Amino acid sequence: MLAESLPEVAVVPAQANLAAQLAFLREIDALKHVYRRTTVMDGSRRENSAEHSWHIALAALVLAEHADEPVEVGKVVKLLLLHDIVEIDAGDTFAYDQVGKASQAAREDAAANRIFGLLPDGQARELRALWDEFEAKETPEARFAHAVDRLLPVLHNFATGGGSWHNHGVNYAMVVERMRPLAENSTALWAWLHGLLDEAVRRGYLAE
Amino acid sequence: MLAESLPEVAVVPAQANLAAQLAFLREIDALKHVYRRTTVMDGSRRENSAEHSWHIALAALVLAEHADEPVEVGKVVKLLLLHDIVEIDAGDTFAYDQVGKASQAAREDAAANRIFGLLPDGQARELRALWDEFEAKETPEARFAHAVDRLLPVLHNFATGGGSWHNHGVNYAMVVERMRPLAENSTALWAWLHGLLDEAVRRGYLAE
Repeated sequence: MLAESLPEVAVVPAQANLAAQLAFLREIDALKHVYRRTTVMDGSRRENSAEHSWHIALAALVLAEHADEPVEVGKVVKLLLLHDIVEIDAGDTFAYDQVGKASQAAREDAAANRIFGLLPDGQARELRALWDEFEAKETPEARFAHAVDRLLPVLHNFATGGGSWHNHGVNYAMVVERMRPLAENSTALWAWLHGLLDEAVRRGYLAE
Repeated sequence: MLAESLPEVAVVPAQANLAAQLAFLREIDALKHVYRRTTVMDGSRRENSAEHSWHIALAALVLAEHADEPVEVGKVVKLLLLHDIVEIDAGDTFAYDQVGKASQAAREDAAANRIFGLLPDGQARELRALWDEFEAKETPEARFAHAVDRLLPVLHNFATGGGSWHNHGVNYAMVVERMRPLAENSTALWAWLHGLLDEAVRRGYLAE
């Protein structure tokens, strides 16, 4: 993905990790080319996974008080900044694509090995562990990160009068099932979202 | 910026802040439409400030060990996720635009009042204080955040064989002056970057 290789520099102790870190930062620029099914909120174009990751990290920061279990918000932010990086190799799998989902875990695991593996060893392990934590959904931080990740596309689809729901034949029951991590981890967000989905059906944005 | 107003929901105590928080999250979607002078690293299009904010937050996470003063990296990440939000109203001011820079502070201050003011009171003050901290450059976290913010465009311009340097008549001395926050806050990053700028001149990416 690199347009030019970076020149080697004399490595002094403080710089020992730098070449690997900069290679990683150049590689992940490619996430700006991975497009999701949802559009930006004015509907003008599809959203990419890099700008989505920024948006959702801030959503977690702002909404953390609504987690049913207390969460360390800095950890949630890190999980969300990293959670989509594997899409650089594995692509974005649409939430309602059952065929794509079957092979998703294996594709994303290989991607995590390659991309986090660009970093210096200790840091590669540290960031890979955060990505594994997100995937495992076992800690309060990982569960809340997933909940927020489910919430934002609904806001996008509501803002655009149906958006990817319309384009891909998604109905009310499918969305409610998809929102289970939200229902299970944030009573407040789920109560609000449930009302929004009902309103989306009334307005014809979402099929019954 | 909102395509549809969200329906009111019955407010229970846990949801008291939610409407304001969701209005803020919808508003900041507009940062995905603010385009910078730099391109993404393959040169195919200009980069927007939302995806840039994601990239730079991860850059801080990965490069924190190179800060001359110890920094709390979670704080640096928050500063960088928030630092460009004012551009929704104030636009992106090009680093080398002296006319735009003269009015930048007043425009950005008004933008911060409006946009952070969408949040519930306590949270509005908290996030506004983080933005003020970034702008004031007085804490180690704010200074390192600025240093990383200066570093990334250089990587973009190197990757694209000159990029916005070529398009806007920027020369070596101008970049070195612009990189002062990096030189002053990260000996390791500055040593590496200095070598990269010399190489950029040799390759004709940057005018002497």
